Amino acid sequence: MDKNISMAVIRRLPKYHRCLNDMLERGIHRISSKDLSDVIGFSASQIRQDFNNFGAFGQQGYGYNVEELFFEISEIIGLSKQYHMVIIGAGNLGGALANYGFEKLGFNVDAIFDNDPEKIGKKLGNIDILDINILETYMSKNPVDIAVIATPSSIAQNIADRLSISMARSIWNFAPTDISVPDEVKLESVHLVDSLMTLAYLLND
Amino acid sequence: MDKNISMAVIRRLPKYHRCLNDMLERGIHRISSKDLSDVIGFSASQIRQDFNNFGAFGQQGYGYNVEELFFEISEIIGLSKQYHMVIIGAGNLGGALANYGFEKLGFNVDAIFDNDPEKIGKKLGNIDILDINILETYMSKNPVDIAVIATPSSIAQNIADRLSISMARSIWNFAPTDISVPDEVKLESVHLVDSLMTLAYLLND
Repeated sequence: MDKNISMAVIRRLPKYHRCLNDMLERGIHRISSKDLSDVIGFSASQIRQDFNNFGAFGQQGYGYNVEELFFEISEIIGLSKQYHMVIIGAGNLGGALANYGFEKLGFNVDAIFDNDPEKIGKKLGNIDILDINILETYMSKNPVDIAVIATPSSIAQNIADRLSISMARSIWNFAPTDISVPDEVKLESVHLVDSLMTLAYLLND
Repeated sequence: MDKNISMAVIRRLPKYHRCLNDMLERGIHRISSKDLSDVIGFSASQIRQDFNNFGAFGQQGYGYNVEELFFEISEIIGLSKQYHMVIIGAGNLGGALANYGFEKLGFNVDAIFDNDPEKIGKKLGNIDILDINILETYMSKNPVDIAVIATPSSIAQNIADRLSISMARSIWNFAPTDISVPDEVKLESVHLVDSLMTLAYLLND
């Protein structure tokens, strides 16, 4: 795959996926470039440019076949594969993420880690809560594509370091702090507070 | 306040806030433009431009006073005020958001709404779970700055419509669908699945 695709394009792919999925659920099978543009909120030329990054697809005269486009976008994102996830932190957020339903998209939560003796050995839904002390042992024996950090900020960098040394392929960080990882570890952070602060600013604007 | 500040600048403010907060916790009281740039990952000229939007502050020859800068950024974001929040949906995610600790920043969750008779009348932490049927009545009697949608996708637009008619000032949407609201309602969406898909793409890149 072309390695030079910008993060801006990559971050638009999930929105295409979501909008096309909504269309399929509403029984829409074919859509013109213009209608797709209206629904998705990107210009028709933006959409064309985005798709051109991945080779020509869609048929402009007749519009797009929604199923085909949905399938192709899913393939590009990598949704035809299955992913192994672990969650560090069995608190409210860790529990919400464990039960979110990501497995429907192929993201399977295999284990949750915590340091609380009250939680270790129990389950969240169907998922075992394991002792954080065996994180390295677990990771040496099991594939982990995505390690989710749902811990307090104070220990997030330490957990990220342990995950990186244990060869986690990627980290999905929910702790409200900036963590750093080696180049070979992919990192996505979800800063809920950033989003909330943006809303506060807009309320006062 | 200048109404022409771009969303790109606004979305960088929380990152300034977070980095300055980290510095204060680490006991750093003064920082040069260059060091601030290194820590925050924006160029020194970007930082200068961002700050210029809000009037001159900081002293370039001597660097920035971290406390002052943190205070000014907090003021700009609107963190000197208190905000009333309600959460729609008392599921795992609603519960995680109710217990996240946003009140430390002045965002107070006053009530949670759900349609499940098993949940209505109970509490999540200290917060009452109310019947979704009384949403409109509640909103006519209580101030709501931010209404959080933590419901399934299928009902998210309906809830957004009810909130908009009830004069919610803003909506923080966590349902994995795109909702639309009238211009006067501020909207921020957190699409967790988008972030997860971005990570999937990067894993296959």
